[in-house]
Amino acid sequence: MDLTNTLQATRLAARTLAILSTAEKNAAINTVARRLEQAQDEVLQANALDVAAAVDAGMAPAMVDRLTLDEKRWQAIISDLRHVADLPDPVGVVLAKNQLPNGLDVQRIRVPLGVIAVIYEARPNVTVDVFGLAIKSGNGIILRGGKETLRTNLAIIRNIREGLKTTAVPPESVTFIDDPDRDIVLAMLKRYDLIDLVIPRGGAGLHQFCRENSQIPVITGGIGICHLFVDESADIEQSLNVIHNAKTQRPSVCNALDTVLVHESIAGKFLPELSVRMTQAGVTLHIDEKAAAYLTLSPLVQKAAEGDFDREWLSLDLGVRIVAGLDEAIAHIQSHSTGHSDGILTENHANAAIFCQKVDSAAVYVNASTRFTDGSALGLGAEMAISTQKLHARGPMALEELTTYKWVIEGQYTVRG
Amino acid sequence: MDLTNTLQATRLAARTLAILSTAEKNAAINTVARRLEQAQDEVLQANALDVAAAVDAGMAPAMVDRLTLDEKRWQAIISDLRHVADLPDPVGVVLAKNQLPNGLDVQRIRVPLGVIAVIYEARPNVTVDVFGLAIKSGNGIILRGGKETLRTNLAIIRNIREGLKTTAVPPESVTFIDDPDRDIVLAMLKRYDLIDLVIPRGGAGLHQFCRENSQIPVITGGIGICHLFVDESADIEQSLNVIHNAKTQRPSVCNALDTVLVHESIAGKFLPELSVRMTQAGVTLHIDEKAAAYLTLSPLVQKAAEGDFDREWLSLDLGVRIVAGLDEAIAHIQSHSTGHSDGILTENHANAAIFCQKVDSAAVYVNASTRFTDGSALGLGAEMAISTQKLHARGPMALEELTTYKWVIEGQYTVRG
Repeated sequence: MDLTNTLQATRLAARTLAILSTAEKNAAINTVARRLEQAQDEVLQANALDVAAAVDAGMAPAMVDRLTLDEKRWQAIISDLRHVADLPDPVGVVLAKNQLPNGLDVQRIRVPLGVIAVIYEARPNVTVDVFGLAIKSGNGIILRGGKETLRTNLAIIRNIREGLKTTAVPPESVTFIDDPDRDIVLAMLKRYDLIDLVIPRGGAGLHQFCRENSQIPVITGGIGICHLFVDESADIEQSLNVIHNAKTQRPSVCNALDTVLVHESIAGKFLPELSVRMTQAGVTLHIDEKAAAYLTLSPLVQKAAEGDFDREWLSLDLGVRIVAGLDEAIAHIQSHSTGHSDGILTENHANAAIFCQKVDSAAVYVNASTRFTDGSALGLGAEMAISTQKLHARGPMALEELTTYKWVIEGQYTVRG
Repeated sequence: MDLTNTLQATRLAARTLAILSTAEKNAAINTVARRLEQAQDEVLQANALDVAAAVDAGMAPAMVDRLTLDEKRWQAIISDLRHVADLPDPVGVVLAKNQLPNGLDVQRIRVPLGVIAVIYEARPNVTVDVFGLAIKSGNGIILRGGKETLRTNLAIIRNIREGLKTTAVPPESVTFIDDPDRDIVLAMLKRYDLIDLVIPRGGAGLHQFCRENSQIPVITGGIGICHLFVDESADIEQSLNVIHNAKTQRPSVCNALDTVLVHESIAGKFLPELSVRMTQAGVTLHIDEKAAAYLTLSPLVQKAAEGDFDREWLSLDLGVRIVAGLDEAIAHIQSHSTGHSDGILTENHANAAIFCQKVDSAAVYVNASTRFTDGSALGLGAEMAISTQKLHARGPMALEELTTYKWVIEGQYTVRG
């Protein structure tokens, strides 16, 4: 494969895609959905080979589970794809419009970004999800999946491109980079002339690799060291429910809770109850010095080790620290948060307002679980990624976040004075 | 100077600045404006030393002019600064608000980016402009000016920081990096933990340097290879006016015209008139093979050399090419434009619509000069930079473009099901 030729073909296809009607894009998505439904056996067989190779290679069972497809999961992926066709088309929306005193009509109109590269690990659902969101938002897409799911991804991509052949969307709009050499990724990351945005989806190492090597704008994110501060006025029973949900509902994801900060004035009452509740759920607490005064150490109640408050656990582990009050809680979050999702549990409106103002994370919560930081849960209808950087988009990114705007200015042979 | 300590101090100051009221920020801007007015002699004396050194070093007169301040220019800079205090404050605006079926109140609220680094060359007005826009939008600012204006910049910064001491804005919000070593810039560009955005303001080399070396998001732009396509239905006399304005009103800036594309069906009538008009204005035409059939070569009418259609002239030079029609004009622009400002001159509405749809530049014009791509000219009231990349902001950037948003989510101890 010649990278330049491949990227140029995607750029060219994306120009056609960018100006298609909503109906044409939706028809293409639905055509591909039908094709992927028919290709179920082919995809599941390819996936079985990937899974067998992963097991042979000694991959951890949790990871193997993430790359495994079955009939039910495959149907859910296709159902999500069809749902994207039902979402509103962001392209062509007039964001601002005014007439200047010199008679110029000035509009800002939403347009696709152009070509987006997504670099991801495991999870074959990403291939289909990204395809749907990219096409719906009018963007060409370069996919670079992990080698663990190569057979699955190639089967999916082959069917997507075959499906597109009967639609208005050029098949070259969707390109999969199957060269196993990492140098090809390095070469991609320098082609700012042909790619407009890079979205890494994977661990911290992948994000760091993209940040360090890309000359193309990168959306980094998806790494969440998430906090909840239990203020002295918080309802204890309900706070325990929120912490239980944020920690245990799906511990392996980025919006799961990592650290609980407890106001010292309620520590004596709150910590023993927290310990009971977490022990029941199989959660190991990692407690600071002050909290140790209120709890008995055990296999599920350990002293926090160096760095434990800077860990994204992704497991049934939870840091616990006692703070003197709101200011110390905010200071801890400012030092240790990755800017993903942080919240306060309180009955004190003034404290809630100060927390929301001073904690500069993508999502700031009052009396709610951090688990809601997700495109679907926050009403965007879908999710491409979660940004923890400040530029362009913050928090969940869906269709609108895959667009930019252009200024369209119309005059009567108007000149500048 | 220890870079880490300096950047940390700015980060800390920016947290205070981020939550100040509009009145507090405006008062600080006006206090600094008064202080800079009083410091006129000090600043002009420092500038005279910079200018003398530049002349001694053999700097080109046009460049020397760009770094020279006099009483009138200094007053204009201060007047622009006062104007920023009058602009609406973008911070705190609720961009979106809704209540989800589960009772969560979800808002997206505009907040400052945090800390912005601006790396610039010559032009001491940038120091004051950037200060005003950064403070008004609640952002800490790291300034790295060119060594040609170091004395001027240090005098300005000293007075800004002294002025801020009596205001609510911490003086450390504004930091100037005066270490002449370029390694310090390289070190800065890696501190994504302490800087949220890098804006280069200068030539293509500076932009490329930032793109290649920054781990912080960079807004690239300010390089404009700008086109006007004269369609067959265009009013010839008025088109000549627009081209004259776009080329000659201020040839040294990025939105000045670089290439005229002429529909072949009107070339016989249009080119001779263009040649007369441009010759009168002292503009040298660089014409393609086909145009040579209609024009006599002369010192001001030359055959285009290799690469002339990929040059940002920044001078009284203009590329001229004949195209078969709209499609070839668009294809030329897609190949040669930097995505800054491109326009069509036409009486044909259908062609205008196709042009606006297919030309993917930050600003697309119908029957107007490209010179309007500018924050003030397009109604933003100010300008920090012009972006030619797709992410975050496109075209002129002013106060809103120096902000991001956070999600603020309030529940009643709400958990995810």
